[in-house]
Amino acid sequence: MYKVAAIGGDGIGPEIVDAGKGVLDAAGEKYGFDIDWTDFDIGADRYLATGDLLTEDDLKELSAFKSIYFGSIGDDRVKPGILEKGILLGLRFHFDQYINLRPVRMLAGTQTPLAGKGPEDIDFLVVRENTEDFYVGIGSRFKGKEHRDLEVIRDIYSIKFGLDVESDSEEIAYQIGVISREGSSRVMKYAFDVAMNREKKVSSVDKANVLTDVYGLWRDVFTETAACYPDVATEFTFVDAITMWFVKNPEWFDVVVAPNMFGDIITDLGAMIQGGLGLAPGGNINPEGTSLFEPIHGSAPKYKGMNQANPIATIWAGSLLLDDLGEPEAAAGVLTAIEKSIAAKQTTVDLGGSLGTREAGAWIADAVRNE
Amino acid sequence: MYKVAAIGGDGIGPEIVDAGKGVLDAAGEKYGFDIDWTDFDIGADRYLATGDLLTEDDLKELSAFKSIYFGSIGDDRVKPGILEKGILLGLRFHFDQYINLRPVRMLAGTQTPLAGKGPEDIDFLVVRENTEDFYVGIGSRFKGKEHRDLEVIRDIYSIKFGLDVESDSEEIAYQIGVISREGSSRVMKYAFDVAMNREKKVSSVDKANVLTDVYGLWRDVFTETAACYPDVATEFTFVDAITMWFVKNPEWFDVVVAPNMFGDIITDLGAMIQGGLGLAPGGNINPEGTSLFEPIHGSAPKYKGMNQANPIATIWAGSLLLDDLGEPEAAAGVLTAIEKSIAAKQTTVDLGGSLGTREAGAWIADAVRNE
Ligand SMILES: CC(C)[C@H](C(=O)O)[C@@H](O)C(=O)O
Ligand SMILES: CC(C)[C@H](C(=O)O)[C@@H](O)C(=O)O
Repeated sequence: MYKVAAIGGDGIGPEIVDAGKGVLDAAGEKYGFDIDWTDFDIGADRYLATGDLLTEDDLKELSAFKSIYFGSIGDDRVKPGILEKGILLGLRFHFDQYINLRPVRMLAGTQTPLAGKGPEDIDFLVVRENTEDFYVGIGSRFKGKEHRDLEVIRDIYSIKFGLDVESDSEEIAYQIGVISREGSSRVMKYAFDVAMNREKKVSSVDKANVLTDVYGLWRDVFTETAACYPDVATEFTFVDAITMWFVKNPEWFDVVVAPNMFGDIITDLGAMIQGGLGLAPGGNINPEGTSLFEPIHGSAPKYKGMNQANPIATIWAGSLLLDDLGEPEAAAGVLTAIEKSIAAKQTTVDLGGSLGTREAGAWIADAVRNE
Repeated sequence: MYKVAAIGGDGIGPEIVDAGKGVLDAAGEKYGFDIDWTDFDIGADRYLATGDLLTEDDLKELSAFKSIYFGSIGDDRVKPGILEKGILLGLRFHFDQYINLRPVRMLAGTQTPLAGKGPEDIDFLVVRENTEDFYVGIGSRFKGKEHRDLEVIRDIYSIKFGLDVESDSEEIAYQIGVISREGSSRVMKYAFDVAMNREKKVSSVDKANVLTDVYGLWRDVFTETAACYPDVATEFTFVDAITMWFVKNPEWFDVVVAPNMFGDIITDLGAMIQGGLGLAPGGNINPEGTSLFEPIHGSAPKYKGMNQANPIATIWAGSLLLDDLGEPEAAAGVLTAIEKSIAAKQTTVDLGGSLGTREAGAWIADAVRNE
C-alpha cells in the first residue's frame, strides 16, 4: 500500500491527473499493490479566492508523502511568476528536490520534427539541477539610490554604466544566480550513477566562457566528480552549442547533466525532438524525501475541461513515480501500455487517434491490466 | 573609399577573413567603391606571447573605424573565458555594440535538419541585446566570510541555505545579471523598426515567470515600446518554449528580440536549423559607432591553416557589413553570389562541393564580379 498525494492544479491539470491515477491503479491491480490517493486543492482558483499559494499546512501534510503526482499550474488571470514561483518552484525548493529527471526518448509510432531520426537515435536522459542557479529568486528592480543595498549595485553601476550610484535614477533590475559545491556535487553524483547503468557517458552543460564564476565552479565540481568514475566518458558542452547537437545529432547523448536554467531550456527542446510536449514527463526527486512527478507541459487553460488533452506525458510521469517507489516492473508495464496505445492509434487527436483524455487514459489502463 | 579594420583572430579565423576580404574587394570593383583594409594582430598568439588581450592602443586605433571584420577567437591553450571575455565581449562592450543581428535564413540548396521545412519556412531575424544581462561580468566565487562584500551574499545564504554567513565556509559562486530600461528600450526600438520593413511581427523572449526582476523589466519595456508601433503584432515567448517552436514552426517568426544570454542560445539553434554554423553570420552593431561583423562559429583550432573551413558565414557577415556601410546593392550582390556558389556546388566539402576555403571564396568573388 502506497500513500500518494495528488495535485491536479490548473487548466487541464485535473483531467490528466485523473487519467493517470486510473492507469496507476490498474498497475496496482496487475502488479499487486494499492495506492491510497490524497487530493490537494492547490492552484490558481484557491489562490484567487484566498490568496494562498502554499500554506504551512499544505507543506506539513505533503511532507508525510514520498510521492506527489502533479498536473500543471498556470492561469491567465494571474501574472507570470506568481503561481510558478509560489507553487511549483515552492514545492521543488521546500522539499529540496535537487534532481529533475527528464528522459528524452522517442517512442515508436510517434513523430519527431527531425529529418531522418527515429527512436533508435533519440534516447537520452537529462539530469537537471533543480534547487540553485538563477532559480533562487534573488533579485530586485529599482531606481538609483532607492535600493536598500548600495553595496550590491555599486559594481553594477560602475562596471556597466560608469554612473554615480548615489545620484543616478535610471531604472535597473538585477538577478543573482548561485551555484554551490555541495549543490552541484550531489546532482552530478546522481548523473554519473545513472550513467553507470546506461552507456557510461555524461555530457555537462554550462556557459563557463562567459558566466565564469558560477559555471567555473560547476566545471570544477564536474571534473572532480568524473575522477571518481573512471569508466564514464565525459565532455563539456556550451549551452548554445548543445541546442545544435540535440537537433543535429541526438544519438550522441546518453546522460546530460545541466544547471537549473539551462536544464529548463534544453529539456523543452528535448521534449520537442522526442515528439512534443504531450509526450514528455519529468520527475523532481529528493531520494531521501518527498518527490514530485509531472508532465513537462503547462496547464493549457484554453482546453480546460474539454477532455481533449493528451494524458500520455502525465501517465509516463506516473511510470517514473512507480519506479521511484521501487516498482520497476509496474513502471515498465505502464510504459509498454503507452507504446501499445500509440501503435494501435488509441490516442488523442494530436497523435493521430480520436479519443478523449479520459478514454485514452482508460485504454492504457486496460492495456496494463491485460499485460 | 571605406576604411575597414580586419581581425583574423585564432584557428581558422585568418583564412576565412582572407576569403571574405577577397569577396568584399570584388564587390567594391563591381559596385564602385574601394576598401582600405587595416589588419590587427589580436588573439591567442599575441596573448600567449605578451599577455595582451585588448590594449588601449588597439581600442584607440579601432575607434577610428566604422566597421571591424572579425574572424574568430578561441584556442585550446587558453582557459575558457579569457579570450572570449577579453577580446570579443571586450570589443562588444567597449564599442557599445548593443545590437547583435542574426539573420536565420535558409538558403536555397542547403540542408536543414528539420523534416519538411525549406527556405520558404526558415527566414527570420533575431535581434539580440548585446551589452547587458548575464554578460556584464559581475560575479564571484568564495568561501564563507572570505567574500569582501557580505551584504551581497547575506541573501544568498539565508534564502538558499539558511546558513550563517559569518561562520559557514562552503564554496559558493554567484553571478549577477543586469537589465536596464535604457538598454532594453534601445534594442527593442531597433527590432520594431526593422519589423516595420518586414512582416510587422515581433516576438519577445524571456523567462519572466522565474527571473521575475530582470525579465519583468524587460517585459514592461517591450509593452511600452510596442505601444509606439500599433501596426506591429507582438507576442511574449518563454525561452524554453521558443526553442521548441524554432524546431516545430520556424515559419511563425519574423523578428525575435531577445536578452543577451537567451539570444546567444537561440541563435545557435537558429544557425543549426538554417543549415549549420558554416552558414550563419552575425553583426554587432552600434549605429553611431564602431560595428563588428563575424561568423557565428568558433575558431575550430583543429582545422587551422588546412584550407578546409567553409568561408560562407564570414562572407555573409561581409554582406551585413556592406549593408551597414550603406551599400545595400553590393550587400545583396554578395548574398546572391553565395547562393550561386551553393547552387553550382562550388563550395567546401561540408556543403557537398570539393573546394578549399580559398577557392570557395574566389569562386564567390568571381560571381560577384560577373553579376
Ligand atoms: C513553469 C516553470 C516555472 C518551470 C521551470 O522553469 O522550471 C517549467 O518550465 C519546467 O520546466 O518545469
Ligand atoms: C564566444 C562567446 C563569448 C559568444 C557569446 O556567448 O556571445 C558566442 O557564443 C556568440 O554567440 O557570439
